[in-house]
Amino acid sequence: MTLHNTHLRAQDAVSRLDTFIALSDFDRPTLVVDLDRVEQQYRALDAGLGRAQIHYAVKANPAEEVIDRLVTLGSHFDAASKGEISLCLSRGAKAHQISFGNTIKKPSDIAWAWDRGITLFAADAEEELEKIAENAPGAQVYIRLIVEVSEADWPLTRKFGCDATKALELLDYARDLCLEPVGFSFHVGSQTRRAEMWIPALDALAQTWKAAQDAGHDLSVLNIGGGFPAFYGEEVDAPEAYAAKVMELVTERFGDVRHIMAEPGRGMVAEAGTIVAECMLVSRKSERDLHRWVYLDIGRFSGLAETEGEAIRYQLETARDHEATGPCILAGPSCDSADVLYEKRPVQLPVGLKSGDRVLIRNTGAYTSTYSSVGFNGFPPLDVVCI
Amino acid sequence: MTLHNTHLRAQDAVSRLDTFIALSDFDRPTLVVDLDRVEQQYRALDAGLGRAQIHYAVKANPAEEVIDRLVTLGSHFDAASKGEISLCLSRGAKAHQISFGNTIKKPSDIAWAWDRGITLFAADAEEELEKIAENAPGAQVYIRLIVEVSEADWPLTRKFGCDATKALELLDYARDLCLEPVGFSFHVGSQTRRAEMWIPALDALAQTWKAAQDAGHDLSVLNIGGGFPAFYGEEVDAPEAYAAKVMELVTERFGDVRHIMAEPGRGMVAEAGTIVAECMLVSRKSERDLHRWVYLDIGRFSGLAETEGEAIRYQLETARDHEATGPCILAGPSCDSADVLYEKRPVQLPVGLKSGDRVLIRNTGAYTSTYSSVGFNGFPPLDVVCI
Repeated sequence: MTLHNTHLRAQDAVSRLDTFIALSDFDRPTLVVDLDRVEQQYRALDAGLGRAQIHYAVKANPAEEVIDRLVTLGSHFDAASKGEISLCLSRGAKAHQISFGNTIKKPSDIAWAWDRGITLFAADAEEELEKIAENAPGAQVYIRLIVEVSEADWPLTRKFGCDATKALELLDYARDLCLEPVGFSFHVGSQTRRAEMWIPALDALAQTWKAAQDAGHDLSVLNIGGGFPAFYGEEVDAPEAYAAKVMELVTERFGDVRHIMAEPGRGMVAEAGTIVAECMLVSRKSERDLHRWVYLDIGRFSGLAETEGEAIRYQLETARDHEATGPCILAGPSCDSADVLYEKRPVQLPVGLKSGDRVLIRNTGAYTSTYSSVGFNGFPPLDVVCI
Repeated sequence: MTLHNTHLRAQDAVSRLDTFIALSDFDRPTLVVDLDRVEQQYRALDAGLGRAQIHYAVKANPAEEVIDRLVTLGSHFDAASKGEISLCLSRGAKAHQISFGNTIKKPSDIAWAWDRGITLFAADAEEELEKIAENAPGAQVYIRLIVEVSEADWPLTRKFGCDATKALELLDYARDLCLEPVGFSFHVGSQTRRAEMWIPALDALAQTWKAAQDAGHDLSVLNIGGGFPAFYGEEVDAPEAYAAKVMELVTERFGDVRHIMAEPGRGMVAEAGTIVAECMLVSRKSERDLHRWVYLDIGRFSGLAETEGEAIRYQLETARDHEATGPCILAGPSCDSADVLYEKRPVQLPVGLKSGDRVLIRNTGAYTSTYSSVGFNGFPPLDVVCI
């Protein structure tokens, strides 16, 4: 029933977005974000997450209108930088609603955040704890753990987090530095398509959690991070059911933790956005070529960075989708030869596609606008319009 | 003698850059560009290239001060977009000095350029010629050929150009469309470290050139593109000698072509720039880790995009370089796990390196500032200062 309703509402939202796009002209690639669709997603995730508090991962889409809507809805925020904290505060979020979740922070930025009332910081290393102790004395910290087992579509590398032994030492060290070590965070990996995929990571974390309690730490914060998926062509669970299942798995393992934080980013905003792009050229390199080359006016350096390694495969729509299709290599407009979106696994596009045709790139509300370069090849950054 | 002098002048220039950097504070990652070093490089390349006309590849570094200096020196320009043409015109370049070298252009941009007096356009496909014929009737076009054989460090994919058979057909087609097909271009691949590496590409092009002449085309333009290297740790020829050798190879194969164009970008500006960055964190993920992780305040999404696949390996300098060193994985400051610079081949950095230490990233004057994202993770774009 929930699923059915969600589906219906999603259809309505797509129509609203599509109506706006159909009636508008765009002189450059533009991301159109439907704020009602963001709200709908927030409500679904919030319902599923229950007692967990949403900290929206601002980096996914920091458009002011998106932040405004989420502030209104009571969301909290996970900020990666001074810039993101400043943004959230300027849009009406309260300092206690914002966590400084990047494990890599400048001392001056820590001090700046602390002065503005931010009290919760992430860390995964001794030196980071020392910086926090010096610039935000007495602050709350949570320790980020490495997840060695990931089934995500965009698994995180070992860049963030530390292993369990180190994490326990860091809790002690934080206490020695007169900080308040409150718990752990982890990240199951971006675009973890099914809730069951969380089980290995939660099992591993539960062991560390228990070991910390046995060592005498009074843990109050469990930050389950992000990983909430968006639809890119492969089936994903509906957000409310997905979030509820994750919380069921959490409760089984952690009981009644006082504060549970969740940091959806992609799962909050990706499906609310469509990029309106244009076909610039269709060609063959030689008469023998089996594939056409299709060049769009947007590429890897103007918003579609997550196509690196062909990891995220966006759904494309054109006005000719009723025509027969053929395989195409898809590329961006810049003179950079690395600016190719899909080549190993070509995309199917209409045989009649030609320069000037509008191409919609679906579910691109996350990790697009801010990845856009300031002006590589003299192309302007991706425009963003919120409706 | 020339080599010796070049070397001496390079040393002077580094000192000027270093003096400025040493005396300055930077509150965020900053690219400092020495304009005299750009001029020196222009003069060396120009001397080596002889009768070939330099068209600076604006995309390598479109800083206004760089364009200004090159305008003063008499450089011509290779523009990838309306934005770059507009920039060059606004800094005093004349329309006849600018070629529109991107093979992927919007019809409206072609018309805009034509209206402003740009008369030379690149193409590699029928549809592109049709767009040019309609929006710049009678314009000069050159056809870009694929180079199947590349020994470059950053070889170009098949994204640009067409094969020889198709290229000859396109010359005919351009004539049929009442355009003026003037010649060919190719690109040997970015960062082609030694002049001898041009031989296979030039040999292939010479065959196509002759075939076109045999077919009755009066070719007047040979665009040899870019590929001129910068020093990133592996030995490269000095610019004047390198350029002279390339021209010797060209003359052997093409005789007295009326107009030869060369499009250095990286080879013109890379060595003129140093990025001043800062170490944000040094850590180990576990006690067993052999490598330290070093996090800088600049990464793949804030200017160092060419570290993708660890292709371009920048030279790093710190004030502790006299200390013992150890292997480090180098990463950027964003919460994106793909924001790792060097991991497969770790870098050697001083064992005493710590948060707050200044890190100089050498020869970063090309393909850095414009790759920077508008604000991923809330970090501001790479700052640029020209001296």
